[in-house]
Amino acid sequence: MRPNRNPHRYNQGQALSPWREALNQIIFGSETAAGRTFDLLLIVAILLSIGVVMLDSVAEIQQRYADALFRAEWAFTALFTLEYLLRLVCVRRPWLYIRSFFGIIDLLSILPAYLGLLLPGAGYMLTLRVLRLLRIFRILKLSEYLDEANVLAVALANSLRKITVFLYAVLTLVVVFGALMYVVEGPQAGFTSIPKAVYWAIVTITTVGYGDIAPKTALGQLIASAIMIMGYGIIAVPTGIYSAELINSRNNRGLDNRACRNCGAAGHDFDAAHCKYCGERIGD
Amino acid sequence: MRPNRNPHRYNQGQALSPWREALNQIIFGSETAAGRTFDLLLIVAILLSIGVVMLDSVAEIQQRYADALFRAEWAFTALFTLEYLLRLVCVRRPWLYIRSFFGIIDLLSILPAYLGLLLPGAGYMLTLRVLRLLRIFRILKLSEYLDEANVLAVALANSLRKITVFLYAVLTLVVVFGALMYVVEGPQAGFTSIPKAVYWAIVTITTVGYGDIAPKTALGQLIASAIMIMGYGIIAVPTGIYSAELINSRNNRGLDNRACRNCGAAGHDFDAAHCKYCGERIGD
Amino acid sequence: MRPNRNPHRYNQGQALSPWREALNQIIFGSETAAGRTFDLLLIVAILLSIGVVMLDSVAEIQQRYADALFRAEWAFTALFTLEYLLRLVCVRRPWLYIRSFFGIIDLLSILPAYLGLLLPGAGYMLTLRVLRLLRIFRILKLSEYLDEANVLAVALANSLRKITVFLYAVLTLVVVFGALMYVVEGPQAGFTSIPKAVYWAIVTITTVGYGDIAPKTALGQLIASAIMIMGYGIIAVPTGIYSAELINSRNNRGLDNRACRNCGAAGHDFDAAHCKYCGERIGD
Amino acid sequence: MRPNRNPHRYNQGQALSPWREALNQIIFGSETAAGRTFDLLLIVAILLSIGVVMLDSVAEIQQRYADALFRAEWAFTALFTLEYLLRLVCVRRPWLYIRSFFGIIDLLSILPAYLGLLLPGAGYMLTLRVLRLLRIFRILKLSEYLDEANVLAVALANSLRKITVFLYAVLTLVVVFGALMYVVEGPQAGFTSIPKAVYWAIVTITTVGYGDIAPKTALGQLIASAIMIMGYGIIAVPTGIYSAELINSRNNRGLDNRACRNCGAAGHDFDAAHCKYCGERIGD
Repeated sequence: MRPNRNPHRYNQGQALSPWREALNQIIFGSETAAGRTFDLLLIVAILLSIGVVMLDSVAEIQQRYADALFRAEWAFTALFTLEYLLRLVCVRRPWLYIRSFFGIIDLLSILPAYLGLLLPGAGYMLTLRVLRLLRIFRILKLSEYLDEANVLAVALANSLRKITVFLYAVLTLVVVFGALMYVVEGPQAGFTSIPKAVYWAIVTITTVGYGDIAPKTALGQLIASAIMIMGYGIIAVPTGIYSAELINSRNNRGLDNRACRNCGAAGHDFDAAHCKYCGERIGD
Repeated sequence: MRPNRNPHRYNQGQALSPWREALNQIIFGSETAAGRTFDLLLIVAILLSIGVVMLDSVAEIQQRYADALFRAEWAFTALFTLEYLLRLVCVRRPWLYIRSFFGIIDLLSILPAYLGLLLPGAGYMLTLRVLRLLRIFRILKLSEYLDEANVLAVALANSLRKITVFLYAVLTLVVVFGALMYVVEGPQAGFTSIPKAVYWAIVTITTVGYGDIAPKTALGQLIASAIMIMGYGIIAVPTGIYSAELINSRNNRGLDNRACRNCGAAGHDFDAAHCKYCGERIGD
Repeated sequence: MRPNRNPHRYNQGQALSPWREALNQIIFGSETAAGRTFDLLLIVAILLSIGVVMLDSVAEIQQRYADALFRAEWAFTALFTLEYLLRLVCVRRPWLYIRSFFGIIDLLSILPAYLGLLLPGAGYMLTLRVLRLLRIFRILKLSEYLDEANVLAVALANSLRKITVFLYAVLTLVVVFGALMYVVEGPQAGFTSIPKAVYWAIVTITTVGYGDIAPKTALGQLIASAIMIMGYGIIAVPTGIYSAELINSRNNRGLDNRACRNCGAAGHDFDAAHCKYCGERIGD
Repeated sequence: MRPNRNPHRYNQGQALSPWREALNQIIFGSETAAGRTFDLLLIVAILLSIGVVMLDSVAEIQQRYADALFRAEWAFTALFTLEYLLRLVCVRRPWLYIRSFFGIIDLLSILPAYLGLLLPGAGYMLTLRVLRLLRIFRILKLSEYLDEANVLAVALANSLRKITVFLYAVLTLVVVFGALMYVVEGPQAGFTSIPKAVYWAIVTITTVGYGDIAPKTALGQLIASAIMIMGYGIIAVPTGIYSAELINSRNNRGLDNRACRNCGAAGHDFDAAHCKYCGERIGD
C-alpha cells in the first residue's frame, strides 16, 4: 500500500471510528481498490454532468430533450450532494475542508442547481456548474500523475519572476503600440478607442489575428508588421525560459552533492557507492 | 547487406520456396536493389493515385477529365490489388499480415473502389482512398529514417504523461473560459451555446483565430485578451517538455558503455576511473 | 541596508545637503521603507493615470464623464510635475538626469498636457501620455527583478547576431514571396501592390492570419501553404537560439569559483582536483 | 589582413594583372577598406532599387511619379550592369562565376529591365527584380556574420532528417484531415474540393487561421478543434529538434577529446594544459 503522499491538512488529525475511516479511505484516498473505483466513477459522473450542462445550452437540443436533460441534471445534483455530505461526515476536520479550495469547488458544483429553484431568473448562474471540471484535478493530484504535474509546476514557479518581467514588457509594448495605432488608424478602421486598439495589439502580438479589426493605411500596416514580427520573435522568450528551467530541474535531480573523503571530488551519481575517480567508498 | 532491422512479426517463421523468398525480398525488404526500386515505384504510384483522388474532387476538373480520371483510378486500383495479392502470396504468415495495421491500410486502399461499384451512392466513401498515404510510412519505417523517427517517437512517448497533464489543464481552461464567454457575450456575438463557446476558446487559445466568432463587448474582449496571453504563454509548456526530453535522450546516448570487470555494472560517466558501485578500477 | 546595485550616473558625485540626501533616498532609492512606499505609490499613480488616458479615448465614457476625467488628468499632471521638480531638486547632476532616457520619459509624461493648453488641436498628442508606462521600468530596475531581467537581456544580447541573420532571412523570404503572390494573385484578391503583398506575407509567415487578404487561386493557395509551413517551422529558429543561450548562461553561472593557489587561474570544473593550467592541487 | 575565409571556386586560380587584382579585392573581397566601402554602397543601392520596384507597383504612386521611377529604375539597372561587367572583367574564372548561384542572381537583377524593352507585355516579369535582395546574402557571407549563419545552418542541416520525418507526418495529417473535413462539411461551408480542404487544414494546423473557410457543423468544429490542438502541440517538435541541435553543437564546441596519459581521464577543456584529476601534463 503506497502512502498517501499529498495528504490535505483537513484530513490529518485524530483517528475516526472504523466505518468513517473506511469511508474516508474510499472517498479521499486512492490507495485501495475501492478508493480507485470511487475515483473512476466520480470522474465519469463529472464528465457526464459537464456533457449535460453543455447540451443544455444548445437551443435545439434543449427544446427537444428538455425533460431528459432536466432529470439528468437533478440526478447528478443529487449524486454530488450525497457525495458532499459523505465527505463532510468522514473527513477529519470538516470546517477546514469546507473552506479549502476543493471544498468550495465541491459546493459550487451543487449550489447553482438549488439556487436556480429559488431565483428563477438566474439561468446564467447555472454555467457555474462547469467548475465541476476542476474537481478532477483533486483526483489527478492523488494519483500517479502527481510527479509529472509537480515537475511542470515547480519549473513554472521557478520561472515565475522571469515570466512576470516578460509579461510586463509585453503589456507595455501592447499599450504603447495600441495607442500609436489609435492615432495612426483612427475610428474608421475599427480602432475606436485606446482600449480597443490595445485589444487589437494583443490579438496581433499573440499571433491570434481574428481580422475583425485590421489596419487599412500603409503606415498602420507597417507598424502592424513590426508588432507581428516582434510577437513572432518574442514567443521565444517564455519558451526559452521554461525549457531552460525544465532542463535544469532534470539535471539537478540527477546530481549528488556528496564529496569523496579521499580525493574530495564531487559530481557523483545518486546511486554511486564508490568515488568514480579514486575508488574510495563514499557514504551518505 | 544490411540486416532487416525492424522485421514485422508476420514476416518471421519458416523458410519459403525460393521464388516466394525472392518476391518477399522485393516486396517486403529494402536490402536489395530490386527491393529499393520496388519501394520507390510504390511511393510514386501512391502519390500519383492520391493526386488522382484529389483532382477527382475538384468539380471543374472532374467534369472535364471524368473519363481519364476514371481510367487512372481503376488502373491504380488494379495495381494495388495485384500488389496486395502478391503480398499475401509471399508473406510468411498471411493471416497475421491481414490483421496487422498496414495490412488493414492496404485493404482500405483498394476496397472503396470495389464497394463503389456495388453501392453507387457511396461517393464519399471514396475519400477513404487518401489513407493510401499512410502506406508510405511502412516504407519509411524500413529505411534509414527509422532511427530519426525513433528518437522523435521515444521522446514523445517519454513526455506523454506530462503532455497528458498539460492537455487536461488546457481542456479545463477552455471549457471554463468558454462557459464564461457564453454568459458574458451571449448569442448575439455568435456564442450561441457552450460547445460553440468552447470551440471559440480552442480557436483562440491555440492562436488560430479564425474570426468567425469574436467578442463584441468590452468585458468579453478583456477575457479574450487573458485567454490569448495564456495561450501565447503556455505554448512554452509542451515545447519545453519536448525539448528537455530530446536533449535528455541525446545525453543518455552519450553515456559510456564500459562495464566493470568486477561487478559488471555499466552506465558509468565518461570521466569515471573507478566503478561507482564497487570501486574497482575500470579501463577503456 | 542593501547597496544600490545599479546607480545611475546622474546620481553619483558629491554629497548633498542632509534634507536633499533624504529626499534622494526616497525618490531615487528603494533601500529604505519610505523609498519603497514612494515607489509603490508612484506605480499606482502611473497605472491610474494610464487608466484615465484610456477611458478618455472611449467616446461614450468621454461624453458622460468629461468633467471628472478632465479633473483627474490635471490632478495626475500636477502630481507628476511636482515629482519631476522634486527629482530635479534632489538629484546630484540635474542636467545629466534631464538628458537621460528616464528623464526624457518623465518629461514626456507631463509635457503633452501643457502643450494641449497652447495648441487646442493637438488632441492626438495626448496619447503620448501612455509613455508613462515606461516609467515603471525604472522602478523595476532598482528592485529584486533586476537579476531576472538581466539574465533575459544578456541572453538576448548574446543571441542578437544570430537573430539578425534570422530576421534578414525572414525579410528576404517575405519580400520574394510577396512579389511572387503579387504576380500570381493580382489586385482582384487584394494583392494590389508589392508592399501590400509583402504585408500579407508577414501576416501569414508569423501565423497571425487576419484573413483581410487571402489567396483565391489554386496556385496562390499552394504558394501560401508553402509560406505557412515555413513560418510554422522557422519559429523553431529564434526559439532554439534563445533557449540555447539561456541554458548556456545558466551553465556558466554554475562554474566553480575556486582559484588555483599556484597560478591564480579560475574557471575550473566542479570535479577538478588539479588546476588545469599548472597542475597544482586545488582544494575546496 | 584577414584571409578570405570562404573563397568561391570561381575566384581561385592563377594571378591576375595588378589592376584587375586590385579591382577583384574591391568587388569580391571585404578585407580592404575600399572593399568594405564597396559592399556598403552596394547594399544601399540594392535596398534603394528594391524600394523603387515596390513603389512602382503601387498604382497611385506609379501614376504620379511614373517619370522619376522610370529614370531611377534605369539608373539602378545601368549601375548593376556596370557592376556585372566589372565582375566579369576581374574574376579569375568568368565562366564559373556566370554559372554560379550568385552569378545567376546578378544576371536576373538586370535582365528583366532589358527584356521589358523587347517584350512590352512582360510587365510582371519585372518583379523578378526583387531577387536582387538575395545578392545581399553574398555580402553577409563574407562578413563577420558568417560564423553565426554557419552555426544556424549546420544545426539546420543536422536536424534535416528529423524535420523531414516531421514534415511528412504533418503532410499526411493534413491530407487525411482535409479529406475528412471535405466529407463532413461539404461545399456549402467552403470545402469545395479535397485540395481546398487540405489548404484549410494547413491554414489551421499552422495556427494561421484566415477564417475565409471555417467549419459550420458541430462535427466539423469538433474535428477542427482536434486539428488545432494537434497543431498547437506539434509545434513543439521542430522547436525541440532544433533547440537540442543548437545546444548540442554548442556543447561539442566546448569539449576536448584528449585523454590523460597518466590516469586516462577525458573531458578536459580545450585550454587545459594539465589533467584536472591527477595533475599530469597533457599534450595536444
